Amino acid sequence: MDSSKPSNRDHFFAIIPAGGVGSRLWPLSRASTPKFLHDLTGSGQTLLQDTWDRLTPIAGNNKMIVTGDVHASLVASQLPELDQANLILEPSPKESTAAIALAAAVLYSRDPEVIIGSFAADHVIREDDKFVATIEESIKLAATGRLVTIGIVPTEASAAFGYIKKGVAIAGSKGFEVAEFVEKPDIQQANRFIFTGDYLWNAGMFIAPAKLLLDVLSKTQPALHAGVVELAKHWDTDQRASKLEEIWPNLEKIAIDYAIAEPASRLGLVSVIQGEFEWHDVGDFAAIAELQSQGVTNSLAVLGSAKVLADSSSGILVSETNRLVALIGLKDVIVVDTPDALLITTKEHAQKVKALVEALKQTGHSDLL
Amino acid sequence: MDSSKPSNRDHFFAIIPAGGVGSRLWPLSRASTPKFLHDLTGSGQTLLQDTWDRLTPIAGNNKMIVTGDVHASLVASQLPELDQANLILEPSPKESTAAIALAAAVLYSRDPEVIIGSFAADHVIREDDKFVATIEESIKLAATGRLVTIGIVPTEASAAFGYIKKGVAIAGSKGFEVAEFVEKPDIQQANRFIFTGDYLWNAGMFIAPAKLLLDVLSKTQPALHAGVVELAKHWDTDQRASKLEEIWPNLEKIAIDYAIAEPASRLGLVSVIQGEFEWHDVGDFAAIAELQSQGVTNSLAVLGSAKVLADSSSGILVSETNRLVALIGLKDVIVVDTPDALLITTKEHAQKVKALVEALKQTGHSDLL
Repeated sequence: MDSSKPSNRDHFFAIIPAGGVGSRLWPLSRASTPKFLHDLTGSGQTLLQDTWDRLTPIAGNNKMIVTGDVHASLVASQLPELDQANLILEPSPKESTAAIALAAAVLYSRDPEVIIGSFAADHVIREDDKFVATIEESIKLAATGRLVTIGIVPTEASAAFGYIKKGVAIAGSKGFEVAEFVEKPDIQQANRFIFTGDYLWNAGMFIAPAKLLLDVLSKTQPALHAGVVELAKHWDTDQRASKLEEIWPNLEKIAIDYAIAEPASRLGLVSVIQGEFEWHDVGDFAAIAELQSQGVTNSLAVLGSAKVLADSSSGILVSETNRLVALIGLKDVIVVDTPDALLITTKEHAQKVKALVEALKQTGHSDLL
Repeated sequence: MDSSKPSNRDHFFAIIPAGGVGSRLWPLSRASTPKFLHDLTGSGQTLLQDTWDRLTPIAGNNKMIVTGDVHASLVASQLPELDQANLILEPSPKESTAAIALAAAVLYSRDPEVIIGSFAADHVIREDDKFVATIEESIKLAATGRLVTIGIVPTEASAAFGYIKKGVAIAGSKGFEVAEFVEKPDIQQANRFIFTGDYLWNAGMFIAPAKLLLDVLSKTQPALHAGVVELAKHWDTDQRASKLEEIWPNLEKIAIDYAIAEPASRLGLVSVIQGEFEWHDVGDFAAIAELQSQGVTNSLAVLGSAKVLADSSSGILVSETNRLVALIGLKDVIVVDTPDALLITTKEHAQKVKALVEALKQTGHSDLL
């Protein structure tokens, strides 16, 4: 590294948007304690803590959390190293664009050369060394004035993720142009994607100069852009609260894919770098069970400190109580045992938990959401 | 009825032995709160209370409970009408002969003409009018100097019960001689039994003059007989406790089938009267589920006050907590939700709960038994 000028890494800042309830993980994941605040891997750390630690070799203390203000105390207790200046608390949920763009605008006001990276707080990543190498490669490419997204090399034809179609290779880097972002395909389409070898999973991670991101936003969502820039201007002053109260409620709710990634892609500004590390979005309990069993069939995975007696049962038990749980003769079962709610289903029906949470809303059980 | 002499019913006394943990009903049924102390039918009453009420039209207040002394306070609170003089508390479990013979000896010492009937506290009986008629018929026959057992007319070829083979009809009564008591058969044998029409289920109920029962016992188990007679002699005195302490620990542990019913049968003293009422011994959760669903398939039976969300699940949920229980896509499931233990299995595996309780003993979870 040429030490005569500051490296790109010195200007790098990781943003961790920590939001989303993850209703397919009810009753573990609740409005008050969403997915990212839980240990879903048995690592002894929550997904948020794992995300934090994974980014340290790249970003050091340059890490910013954006989360709902209701989660402030749990986030602070899980991340004692977090500098409060790098904690953005949203007064209400506004989807990913407002969260990430506000963080980018605040960081841009502190350092106009900042390169930001956005990393979801609730994914599981293994092979951290490969992750670090991929992100460092991405920072270099982003520094050339690009929005760089990470495309995970698929390990199966999944219909659960959006895809990124690779275009031409970018000379002098490991990146490719993004030919196209593709929404979640059906399974036949997914099979075709895998067959071509040109498609990668969209893991929702990207790296870009904050200036570039804000420039794109100013064109696609001018009001939202003006809002976050105005907020950023007053962020490190005593007017933060009053400005938040004035501006935040009116910000557009829109996913960053639609507000920035796809429009920027059509402008030829988006590249993709392939990630070959192990990545899981652990969207439902079946996914967690798969992750825990690591290919061992007919075993019962246990998350939590439950006493368990299991006679030839397979699947996953997630326990937040100290109760003894006895399972006999169940196949691919999912049991989630919490103090006020118990879920029992099977891997096959794991996706239906989301509809069940809807049913809870309809039937007036909002205390359990 | 000839009112010039006391009727047999005036000398009738019902004995309700309330013992047996029912380990196939764990974790609902525990050493401290066995099966008979639970509502397993959704009637709003426990099995013990149902048994008590069922006998009132026949026995009035002439009802005696024999139970473990650890259950004294729960039994008293469930049966406020129980006269404490008619409560026998066993210092330790000694199987059915000691329990019933002591009760018979105490009642005999109070009324030498007493006719006793013994009725388990943990069976489910419906069609109470038929039950009452059957027992009244049995009392008449018992008064002629016989031990009368009730044989349930089978509704299926069950391998779960012992059988009684009918002999010749007894003139002037609805009874039959007992040709033979048969232990639980295998399913092929059970099928043959049903085919002949000569076999009835042994429901463990019998009616006899106390004197006859004690006479048989004096021949088959002289030491046990001497023990209960000695206890009875001092029962209604201030020496009850000291005599219990001296005699009870040494009493033989033996089931009444072996000590009295079968030997008496070989002496030609035992008759059987057919019971055509609905009878269930609710031995495991599958049996309770069957009972609750009453032939309606693919439904979920719920015992207890749980809030339940069930999407196309069938089987039974027994809840002793106020937790919400959500079930998705489970077939013939058995869920038993108690404050300190959770059991999940299927109807197919309901019998294995007993082995699980054994495993709990082996693994030092005696607090949960």
